[in-house]
Amino acid sequence: MKDLRVGLIGYGFMGRMHTFCYKTIPMIYRNAPRARIVGVSTAHDASARSAAAEIGCEFATSDWPRLIERDDVDIIDVCSPNAAHKDQVIAALRAGKHVYCDKPLTTSAADAREIAAAARQATGCVHQMTFQNRFFPATLRAKELIDEGRLGRIYHFRGAYLHAGYVDPARPFTWRMDKAHGGGALVDLGSHIIDLMRHLLGEFESVCAATETFVTERPLLGQPARKLPVEVDDWAMLTVRMAGGFPGTVEASRFAMGINDELRFEIHGEKGALRFNLMEPNWLYFFDNTDPGGNYGGSKGFKQIECVQRYSDVLLPTPKNSIGWRDSHRHCLCNFVKCVAEGKPASPDLADGAAVQQIMDAAYESAKTGRWVKVGDMT
Amino acid sequence: MKDLRVGLIGYGFMGRMHTFCYKTIPMIYRNAPRARIVGVSTAHDASARSAAAEIGCEFATSDWPRLIERDDVDIIDVCSPNAAHKDQVIAALRAGKHVYCDKPLTTSAADAREIAAAARQATGCVHQMTFQNRFFPATLRAKELIDEGRLGRIYHFRGAYLHAGYVDPARPFTWRMDKAHGGGALVDLGSHIIDLMRHLLGEFESVCAATETFVTERPLLGQPARKLPVEVDDWAMLTVRMAGGFPGTVEASRFAMGINDELRFEIHGEKGALRFNLMEPNWLYFFDNTDPGGNYGGSKGFKQIECVQRYSDVLLPTPKNSIGWRDSHRHCLCNFVKCVAEGKPASPDLADGAAVQQIMDAAYESAKTGRWVKVGDMT
Amino acid sequence: MKDLRVGLIGYGFMGRMHTFCYKTIPMIYRNAPRARIVGVSTAHDASARSAAAEIGCEFATSDWPRLIERDDVDIIDVCSPNAAHKDQVIAALRAGKHVYCDKPLTTSAADAREIAAAARQATGCVHQMTFQNRFFPATLRAKELIDEGRLGRIYHFRGAYLHAGYVDPARPFTWRMDKAHGGGALVDLGSHIIDLMRHLLGEFESVCAATETFVTERPLLGQPARKLPVEVDDWAMLTVRMAGGFPGTVEASRFAMGINDELRFEIHGEKGALRFNLMEPNWLYFFDNTDPGGNYGGSKGFKQIECVQRYSDVLLPTPKNSIGWRDSHRHCLCNFVKCVAEGKPASPDLADGAAVQQIMDAAYESAKTGRWVKVGDMT
Amino acid sequence: MKDLRVGLIGYGFMGRMHTFCYKTIPMIYRNAPRARIVGVSTAHDASARSAAAEIGCEFATSDWPRLIERDDVDIIDVCSPNAAHKDQVIAALRAGKHVYCDKPLTTSAADAREIAAAARQATGCVHQMTFQNRFFPATLRAKELIDEGRLGRIYHFRGAYLHAGYVDPARPFTWRMDKAHGGGALVDLGSHIIDLMRHLLGEFESVCAATETFVTERPLLGQPARKLPVEVDDWAMLTVRMAGGFPGTVEASRFAMGINDELRFEIHGEKGALRFNLMEPNWLYFFDNTDPGGNYGGSKGFKQIECVQRYSDVLLPTPKNSIGWRDSHRHCLCNFVKCVAEGKPASPDLADGAAVQQIMDAAYESAKTGRWVKVGDMT
Repeated sequence: MKDLRVGLIGYGFMGRMHTFCYKTIPMIYRNAPRARIVGVSTAHDASARSAAAEIGCEFATSDWPRLIERDDVDIIDVCSPNAAHKDQVIAALRAGKHVYCDKPLTTSAADAREIAAAARQATGCVHQMTFQNRFFPATLRAKELIDEGRLGRIYHFRGAYLHAGYVDPARPFTWRMDKAHGGGALVDLGSHIIDLMRHLLGEFESVCAATETFVTERPLLGQPARKLPVEVDDWAMLTVRMAGGFPGTVEASRFAMGINDELRFEIHGEKGALRFNLMEPNWLYFFDNTDPGGNYGGSKGFKQIECVQRYSDVLLPTPKNSIGWRDSHRHCLCNFVKCVAEGKPASPDLADGAAVQQIMDAAYESAKTGRWVKVGDMT
Repeated sequence: MKDLRVGLIGYGFMGRMHTFCYKTIPMIYRNAPRARIVGVSTAHDASARSAAAEIGCEFATSDWPRLIERDDVDIIDVCSPNAAHKDQVIAALRAGKHVYCDKPLTTSAADAREIAAAARQATGCVHQMTFQNRFFPATLRAKELIDEGRLGRIYHFRGAYLHAGYVDPARPFTWRMDKAHGGGALVDLGSHIIDLMRHLLGEFESVCAATETFVTERPLLGQPARKLPVEVDDWAMLTVRMAGGFPGTVEASRFAMGINDELRFEIHGEKGALRFNLMEPNWLYFFDNTDPGGNYGGSKGFKQIECVQRYSDVLLPTPKNSIGWRDSHRHCLCNFVKCVAEGKPASPDLADGAAVQQIMDAAYESAKTGRWVKVGDMT
Repeated sequence: MKDLRVGLIGYGFMGRMHTFCYKTIPMIYRNAPRARIVGVSTAHDASARSAAAEIGCEFATSDWPRLIERDDVDIIDVCSPNAAHKDQVIAALRAGKHVYCDKPLTTSAADAREIAAAARQATGCVHQMTFQNRFFPATLRAKELIDEGRLGRIYHFRGAYLHAGYVDPARPFTWRMDKAHGGGALVDLGSHIIDLMRHLLGEFESVCAATETFVTERPLLGQPARKLPVEVDDWAMLTVRMAGGFPGTVEASRFAMGINDELRFEIHGEKGALRFNLMEPNWLYFFDNTDPGGNYGGSKGFKQIECVQRYSDVLLPTPKNSIGWRDSHRHCLCNFVKCVAEGKPASPDLADGAAVQQIMDAAYESAKTGRWVKVGDMT
Repeated sequence: MKDLRVGLIGYGFMGRMHTFCYKTIPMIYRNAPRARIVGVSTAHDASARSAAAEIGCEFATSDWPRLIERDDVDIIDVCSPNAAHKDQVIAALRAGKHVYCDKPLTTSAADAREIAAAARQATGCVHQMTFQNRFFPATLRAKELIDEGRLGRIYHFRGAYLHAGYVDPARPFTWRMDKAHGGGALVDLGSHIIDLMRHLLGEFESVCAATETFVTERPLLGQPARKLPVEVDDWAMLTVRMAGGFPGTVEASRFAMGINDELRFEIHGEKGALRFNLMEPNWLYFFDNTDPGGNYGGSKGFKQIECVQRYSDVLLPTPKNSIGWRDSHRHCLCNFVKCVAEGKPASPDLADGAAVQQIMDAAYESAKTGRWVKVGDMT
């Protein structure tokens, strides 16, 4: 099979990460299709040339439409700031390209609906969101257990994505603190846990949210005396009701002092319960209430299930292959390139990205009004 | 010193627990005042007599005012169902008795205000709530660290009290499932974690809450075919804003499948963070952001502080004295009897109980209206 | 039934602990026989009188035979220094008393054999060792699981009892550092874990041991300038072979810096495995290799079994009744008084105490010679 | 700079792992020298050709001397079975090649001494062992803390490497169960933890060991009816005395039912203590006894230090970069290629490999004789 050829838009933190994943897929997966970056687009000619040199590809441009229009590009991989996604994704779809889009999809539900509409029309285009947290061995296993009915009726759940990355008030202003560019803890971190809970537990029906900004101005990079106002959320808390008829919570924080990078959830159901924490990525905790051997005090308890070997199709599938963020990213991308190669729909797709955007929009609306907001239809 | 003489109202689960605490205080604490139950009141004469026999006291009645009016009673200990507290506490205060009242204080904020007013007028009466979770070594240590400023400005927090005690739909109906008698997860469990968060972090200003009932009817005890409707909450979720200007959450659940009895909190501040979980009662986890030795990856980290020996005035203060619920109850009661003996105000007092009631009332109001509700003043 | 009457020999740390247990048994256990201390013996008249006042008993003596010879004493409880046990236990047995003896039984295997012989001859006397670690809910559960064959053939195990209580070189010399009085980490801590492993896994066949003294002299209490040599072990490490044909290890340390009071074990068998740590006393960890649902990465894993409610016959058997050292002591004693009341043999008995002594003697012999030593027969 | 050219001997599990590391170094490390496999040698021509195709190199041979004699090879990477190492390493050194050798170095101390002698004579050859466990962020940090004196005088330690990989008696016979080829739990797993403890704590002086074989015959691969005897250890337990004057233990097991892949240690010193477990690779636990703020019960405790960001020179040094076995392998190899590029000695080198071999030989000798054995000099 011919290699899939990728045009990469954006070469910041995420662009570098995607590049790493493309390059290492053939070294990790047996029989995975090969996909190789053939061109890159960044904001400036010089940075684009430097990116191309680092990646080892020939084509570099500061004018992303030129990348999309190339015939030798099968896939457009969108790693630009959130506010730029919409035009790039839609243009790529219209040019008949497969699309791999970093999260979150865009900066508003309205834009998300436009993108989702474009995706529906782009028959033949395979598209996927970079919601890599679906692709940890432990979260893959969680999905299986839920789908097998091992939790039964869900009572309630709590999901969170927490770190302390922004606690230093001297950390300079970036687009991630800028409303116009789609910054904010909910957008940045919350989108991940919202997607994961929606993936595991179904559609969100309504949301009641609160947000907070703890450091309200930040210095410009390299100009500590100049301050810019921070208007986005450092913390967001959502209480939600799911279409399945049960409640839950989703929290996102960049000010969770002491916490490194904990994406975590607890799901309580009639027949069982699940626990996961990204900082112990090897393990899924499963409580099976149908376990024989007596009630509490007998033989029941949360079981620490080692999930490392769930990546069974990888090179060296040894239990010692501790799993982390890079692995989940690569597994997520690998899923996409396989779907492209096989010409079948990928998941989570742009519609999933749009659904998450709807939930985030509803949350921001709720935080503003102090009331429950129904999550908008996708139609 | 003469023994303090206690009249106990109620001899269910909590009455037995308090009895155990009175009896074991002299065996655990050096130099603690002695308090001894001299009379007991329950709903029926026969049960009262049987309680008195078990306790080893002489006086037994099904008419609680007769217990209160006795001259040989210094302390009234209220362990009756929540809805009965108000009349009993007020009568005891008016009779000049010291009062130890199990939580929650009562069943409405209006009643709570009446009690608090009676307490203010009852000069000379020492009164305390049974909020025993303040009295774990680890929570005592948490309070110290916060008061010493070791967390600095608080960013946000999450508190929860979770168990799975009600997941079996065959569990019979009791007053804890009865609105009229003050049942509900928020009242039963939430009152504890609300009190603890208020103790550690100050007044609650406003609250936005949701509640849920998962099993909407329950069989009568011994009559499985007869069902009573359950109208109280099995789960309650509060997002709150504190007078200190920061947000947080409080969750209570009796349907947290897999979880035994986790009262837990995480508090994130500018200079540090705290973690506690009642199921690991020996430990407080403290993250000190002022720790020298570099940032994350240097020498910082959550420190697992063994707090067992914080009970320094106890018999055999050995590190192996693992701590649990009974110990916190006894330490709570010991604090009360010491205050009575020394004639000084106790804490948490009835006003604290009333404050928690205000917060719960605001939460129920919010859950009904779907809006933020300001916590009422206590004046 | 008449109360059982106890004569207590020794009122140091352990004497106080036993006293606490006698007094609180009736407050915790439904239907437990009552046992009450009627006399106490200590080294000096004054300390004996003060002990009697604290205990609330009438008889006090510095001459322990006078306590044993009393007709109104049913049980002799031996809490004296280890070197004094032998004469007291044998005298008590000869006087027809039931005996409850704190661990370790004595200071040499030869003495232990004498005691065991006396116990065999004292028909009608119920006797038990204070090996309280057998009586944690989690260790009771571990024993059940092993007896049910849930671990299958045992491959190997490791047991340890570790704390850091002696790391301060200024800690004064006591009899626990004195060879003549039966001091040493192996005797003090190791006896517990040896007994527990023998209880769970059967007889020890041979042992190869090493010991170490880290602080070789200690100040006299109150005379920091005067130093006494420490000749006993601060650390002991045993590699053992069991009669069941499998190996394991037992470690004891009073210099395990950072560790509070960890009695812990891991047992690896053909069908399953167990883990326990006294500092998490609520939990037993059980790995079931016969678990359906696939190998590692499927549904297997160490299950965190809440064992609190295993104490089912206690007052208020709630899951929140976190368990600790005092509880295990009381449960151990409660087992003894029940056996006395019912006139049936108790376990672990003096022969078990003697068996542990044989193992410790073999270990010290091995540490001296640097060779494997066979554990002596008890006959 | 020119790429370093590597000749790889062996393409089994470890050969594949090393290949992965060579290929991904340039994608992870900023400014790392490039090293590229140019030839591979395996047991058979066909497997060599297939390995070369997978690796993407041109030269393939079943005759390893032909690989060593090539002028276009700078580095010989030895991933063959243990028994083949000696001839290959010595030949490579004599040919002036740099050598990267998988652990253990060889199958006997005598052979190890020969290799070490050859290494001393091969001036200009850089050589390193694949002891990758030195290269976890957490173990790198542990080494720093010890070297800074943060633990003070060491009291004692315990190290272990445990998994359950061999518990299935149907697992077929391989060279890892064959004495002649250098199989055994001590060799396979123990060599890692011995090296790590020696790295952190200094030379081993003497050792007293026991070993056990739990499954004494195994089926041939594909011929379940034919059984071969297993003569190597499934479990090994070493009690050791270090040149520094303190004792410790090292355990290795392939029958630790329930355990996935736990390389773990606890080190207790006068000023502090360390804990590590490979299955929680992100964290190092450090107890600092010089911590101000009171004794146990004050502010001391094991601190959970996140070490992920200790890999500071990597692409995307984000805290979320959870670390695992592949990362430690790559970091280990990266250290080697940097040393080769800079022409400076690498560590751990072949002499370190030989030192570990001496200790293992002493352990096997001790297990046979049942006595303490002094670890041989390396001269």
